[in-house]
Amino acid sequence: MFKFEIRQKCEKSAARLGTVYTDHGKIETPGFIFCATKANIKGLTIDKVKEAGTQIILSNTYHLMLQPGSEIIKEAGGLHQFMGWDGPMFTDSGGFQIFSLGYGSIDAEIKGAQLLKGKKTMLALSEAGAKFRSYIDGKIVMLTPELSMRIQHDLGADIVVSFDECTPYHVNKLYTANSMEKSKRWALRSLNELKRIGDGSQALLVVIQGGIYPDLRMESARFANEGDFQGFAIGGCLGKTKSEMYDIVNLTSEMLDKTKYVHLLGIGGIEDIFNGVKCGIDTFDCVTPTRIARHGAAIVKKRELRDNTMKNYMNLNNALFKNDFKPISSSCQCYTCLNFSRAYIHHLLKAKEILSGSLISIHNIYTLNKLMSEIRNSLKTDSLATVYKEWCER
Amino acid sequence: MFKFEIRQKCEKSAARLGTVYTDHGKIETPGFIFCATKANIKGLTIDKVKEAGTQIILSNTYHLMLQPGSEIIKEAGGLHQFMGWDGPMFTDSGGFQIFSLGYGSIDAEIKGAQLLKGKKTMLALSEAGAKFRSYIDGKIVMLTPELSMRIQHDLGADIVVSFDECTPYHVNKLYTANSMEKSKRWALRSLNELKRIGDGSQALLVVIQGGIYPDLRMESARFANEGDFQGFAIGGCLGKTKSEMYDIVNLTSEMLDKTKYVHLLGIGGIEDIFNGVKCGIDTFDCVTPTRIARHGAAIVKKRELRDNTMKNYMNLNNALFKNDFKPISSSCQCYTCLNFSRAYIHHLLKAKEILSGSLISIHNIYTLNKLMSEIRNSLKTDSLATVYKEWCER
Repeated sequence: MFKFEIRQKCEKSAARLGTVYTDHGKIETPGFIFCATKANIKGLTIDKVKEAGTQIILSNTYHLMLQPGSEIIKEAGGLHQFMGWDGPMFTDSGGFQIFSLGYGSIDAEIKGAQLLKGKKTMLALSEAGAKFRSYIDGKIVMLTPELSMRIQHDLGADIVVSFDECTPYHVNKLYTANSMEKSKRWALRSLNELKRIGDGSQALLVVIQGGIYPDLRMESARFANEGDFQGFAIGGCLGKTKSEMYDIVNLTSEMLDKTKYVHLLGIGGIEDIFNGVKCGIDTFDCVTPTRIARHGAAIVKKRELRDNTMKNYMNLNNALFKNDFKPISSSCQCYTCLNFSRAYIHHLLKAKEILSGSLISIHNIYTLNKLMSEIRNSLKTDSLATVYKEWCER
Repeated sequence: MFKFEIRQKCEKSAARLGTVYTDHGKIETPGFIFCATKANIKGLTIDKVKEAGTQIILSNTYHLMLQPGSEIIKEAGGLHQFMGWDGPMFTDSGGFQIFSLGYGSIDAEIKGAQLLKGKKTMLALSEAGAKFRSYIDGKIVMLTPELSMRIQHDLGADIVVSFDECTPYHVNKLYTANSMEKSKRWALRSLNELKRIGDGSQALLVVIQGGIYPDLRMESARFANEGDFQGFAIGGCLGKTKSEMYDIVNLTSEMLDKTKYVHLLGIGGIEDIFNGVKCGIDTFDCVTPTRIARHGAAIVKKRELRDNTMKNYMNLNNALFKNDFKPISSSCQCYTCLNFSRAYIHHLLKAKEILSGSLISIHNIYTLNKLMSEIRNSLKTDSLATVYKEWCER
């Protein structure tokens, strides 16, 4: 059964140390949730994901409902059994992908980038739900709050999310307000359906919408605080710039009933994590650690970089690493750093060997988990700033 | 230091049980050598290769001399250190790839298929060596017996191979004879160079050429038997059909000094292995187990198949497996079979997730190692036929 316990609150900020209990084990918070989009973390056997210190993973309802279909996963005994993961698991509602893929780009739209031209799969949006075309076989699918809950129930994750319209950036305040109101109604339908079909073992998070408008975020939060949800997931458009995003996350988080668990959807840059933790965010999820790995980028402390960029990742494609026989990070205890050099990974990247992505993914997952563990430790003595300095200053 | 010991000879055939000792451990024979072409087994962390019971791996001189270059690997402390493999290792001479890729196809040409149109990288063949164009950067490279040995010395494998011309199929007997004679001269140059630069820790195998002509194979074997080589590698064109191949392998093997170690280059189908073992072949290598894995084919006993093909592999792309929650093989103890179902792997294949190839590769490697172990056990009681029946009859 889901339970969230706050173990310690900080003095200097809204940060808190907590523990989430689920039927598949606990999650120490602040924590990071890794994306196993299509029932696997790309290129990694699941034991390596676990060995890298992973507490919880996230799979996507949208992808899994289309391939292999939730009925197959249910027949397999649920997603845990199907993919061989015995720890805590999270599924999203499918809303984000329908709307973001539907408008022709994965997440450019929600982040306010120019509307990309691409194959648009979103067909119609109504009070009932969202109609879209399957990218697998072109079949038309109608996803409703009830169906999203039934699918998430079949998948059997420990933490599930209410179905919402993921409001885009380019729309005006009126659209955002109406969309947020619809998401409220959908959240109630989600709650009712899960109560009807579930046994109470799955925790339901309600998504907070309202775009970049404080009053709309406030209304979304008010509704969420009053409902019978086990926690919150801050979603939707958070603005175009980092500073806009930090402002929205901060003010939204402040409005929430902070005795409950708070997840921030789809955000997971190193600096973003520090900001989120200070706002009282308990968990983060993001595809970045494993996606950038497949392109050759390893997450490191800025002072470990060999070039003068201000990023938190080392681009191992760089010819600098051709004969650099040190591990990615000398202090790192991950499988990759204990066994392989930058030169070896550079070679694998040049030779287009997919093992490069697997090895860097292991490092990135381990590193994110290590970062979260250092953050948790620092919160015990209210010294988050020290960890920030260690990771983000040169 | 390399040593080969025959522990038991069979009565019913030329099969024998043996042990190869190297500075990085021993290999029980008959054994299988897995292809880590570009210093990795595609999509697998090296610990998974080891866990699957692998005794020895093979890397390719041709690929590694072009990327990353043998000097980088030497600087890393050798290939063992570079790629994190601490067991026995084999490298080929580069000859096979120069000639097979050079004539416009990977191995179609050597197997007698029609000459494929493609980018031909082979530029000139002379007594000195072979000149070809790098597929990486277009640079012209001249590979000689001496250079091949220097590269293989830098790589530092336990077993290395003399540089030879891998005679194609479409040529006539005169060409094959001249080519075989040239390979003899190149073998002597290889031997001399390795003696000059080496410390005797690397075993040199001489390649037996002569195509499909018994008298030429005889001459190649006579030369090889008289030389100061630690063993033999049967190479070149073995004919167009399975039965032609078995004949050539059989007669070539018979001609060799069978107190020494015999490797069969590039052959590794299940039936081929049984045939080879009966001819006294000690080790096999082939890309098949991992290559077919990436296309969804899992090696199984024929009686485990769900369709009525006569092959030794299960095509997990087949819709049959959509909701088949059994492991690939119920009796298999590999990581994949202990943790995942056919349905899960089928899903990964449909979702184009590269983890499918990794999971099937683990199974295929484990299965080949298991087969070799069963073959070795059967040789103790001269009951190879029983194992053959178990694997190849329905």
